[in-house]
Amino acid sequence: MSDLCIIGLGLIGGSLLRAADAAGWKVRGMARSAAVVTAVRDAGFDATSSIEDALADGHALVVLAVPLPAVVGVLTVVARHAAYCRLTDVVSVKQPVAAAVARHTPTARYVGGHPMAGTSASGWAAGSATLFTGAPWVVGSDDGADPEVWAQVAGLALECGAHVVPAGAADHDAAVARVSHLPHLLAAVLASVGGDGGSLAMALAAGSFTDGTRVAGSRPELVRAMCEGNRDALLAAVDDALGRLGAARGSLASTGGLIATIQAGHLARRAFDAARDTARETTEHIDLSTPGALARLRELGHQGARVTALQDTSCHVTL
Amino acid sequence: MSDLCIIGLGLIGGSLLRAADAAGWKVRGMARSAAVVTAVRDAGFDATSSIEDALADGHALVVLAVPLPAVVGVLTVVARHAAYCRLTDVVSVKQPVAAAVARHTPTARYVGGHPMAGTSASGWAAGSATLFTGAPWVVGSDDGADPEVWAQVAGLALECGAHVVPAGAADHDAAVARVSHLPHLLAAVLASVGGDGGSLAMALAAGSFTDGTRVAGSRPELVRAMCEGNRDALLAAVDDALGRLGAARGSLASTGGLIATIQAGHLARRAFDAARDTARETTEHIDLSTPGALARLRELGHQGARVTALQDTSCHVTL
Repeated sequence: MSDLCIIGLGLIGGSLLRAADAAGWKVRGMARSAAVVTAVRDAGFDATSSIEDALADGHALVVLAVPLPAVVGVLTVVARHAAYCRLTDVVSVKQPVAAAVARHTPTARYVGGHPMAGTSASGWAAGSATLFTGAPWVVGSDDGADPEVWAQVAGLALECGAHVVPAGAADHDAAVARVSHLPHLLAAVLASVGGDGGSLAMALAAGSFTDGTRVAGSRPELVRAMCEGNRDALLAAVDDALGRLGAARGSLASTGGLIATIQAGHLARRAFDAARDTARETTEHIDLSTPGALARLRELGHQGARVTALQDTSCHVTL
Repeated sequence: MSDLCIIGLGLIGGSLLRAADAAGWKVRGMARSAAVVTAVRDAGFDATSSIEDALADGHALVVLAVPLPAVVGVLTVVARHAAYCRLTDVVSVKQPVAAAVARHTPTARYVGGHPMAGTSASGWAAGSATLFTGAPWVVGSDDGADPEVWAQVAGLALECGAHVVPAGAADHDAAVARVSHLPHLLAAVLASVGGDGGSLAMALAAGSFTDGTRVAGSRPELVRAMCEGNRDALLAAVDDALGRLGAARGSLASTGGLIATIQAGHLARRAFDAARDTARETTEHIDLSTPGALARLRELGHQGARVTALQDTSCHVTL
């Protein structure tokens, strides 16, 4: 039986508390807010408002489940009370967290993580034990990752119903800029442009607008933390979007046609659907304790592979 | 019992055939494809592949349910076989259809329409009798609209489960550019930018990407027809989006912050949700046969009002 210590009990931390508990982990959560601690306890879980108390069990896997701007503050306490702990996180960017860990808790055995799941709701009450079911969960696989902690983090993800995608921090950040942070930015832009159309436009808005703006309903401070924390990768993604939208504008204004934009988007969306529906057939076993294992995992992750099972430090990867 | 003649039996025309039939209308459909006609007949409906046959009953309300590029072709046949018919349409732009009607069938008693409903699937098989339930259905309310045809088109919309939004053609086109055509363009751009991220990005794509690109799955020729047919209004909406996305880019690059963009989008999305959830309390009765009735309807529609009931040519409007 492993111990898990979750710092932060919002949507993601709170869902992890429920999911890991359901999977048989002995779990303790920490939230600053006394009201949240009471709600968590009322739901039958172990929670505290003291981060020192939460970290008291030096054997627990510690999970940082706070927004990026709060990470350094937590890490300085971890450095004082559990400097050698096993450490992971569920924050939406990986390079800034890895840099903060290297600076503030260099002795922690850190392997980053990021479950790609969420809703536009926030907070403990919005969480669910099934939030991660079927979701990708990135496990940081840069060279130097501790095989034992890697396997524990990946095991946690699998037991929460997710599948594990191995990736380096830089690759992760570039990918999520395109498929998570840019969508949030475009949703905000679309919501504003629609709103500029006034009451008639709002009355006529149907599925395309509702779907396209859904994540604009998320808490602005969380969206900002995630987007601003991935600045360089997001700038590249925004430039790609601006270039494509500008080209569409030019084509519409000059020739009246949008075939290139619409066709490219349609093919990309179809490829996305096809990739998700394709039965994966290649499988590979990788022993994390062998040299080059992390590099091979990153390479497979880059191709869209996932780790679907673990035994000790041996991964079963399917592509 | 009224007769309804639907030219075109794709997703919208086919759904209208089913919904109007269920509401008690005597309905005949026309599709060019023999396979579609067979499928429609097998489902127990009256269908023909001959547009002349379809138009034979001069008393029917004729519905143009073909994509914009096919409208003129249909109108020239209508001009020959049913020049004085009652005529409406379900095409996604209103000014180009009104102009085509004025040019090719000026004697038809035309009142434009646009049900704001759809799915990313297309064709007869994708249709459903409940597609319009709860959807806004714009009924063209420019000066000169025939009150009797207006009431018949609005009645059809209400009987199909939609609510009627009165609007002039130009106002309609400006509004849908923002809440329907721009969302399709942004979905295409987002799908392409995500696809540029390769297999890892696709493996990590979750709700924000899936929702934001959903309508990129729609048939490209239908999306093109709708967007290209609303060129001027769409250019204005694209410029608004480019300006906002460019400002976000500049702010992220210079200060690292996205507060203005994210906050504005969040407030706009919340206002949209609030407008839909608000109980509408003001009601008004408007007799279509009185002078100024259409202008008053347009004015109310501009404020987000809807027609929820009809008796003869008297509308019950709620705001």
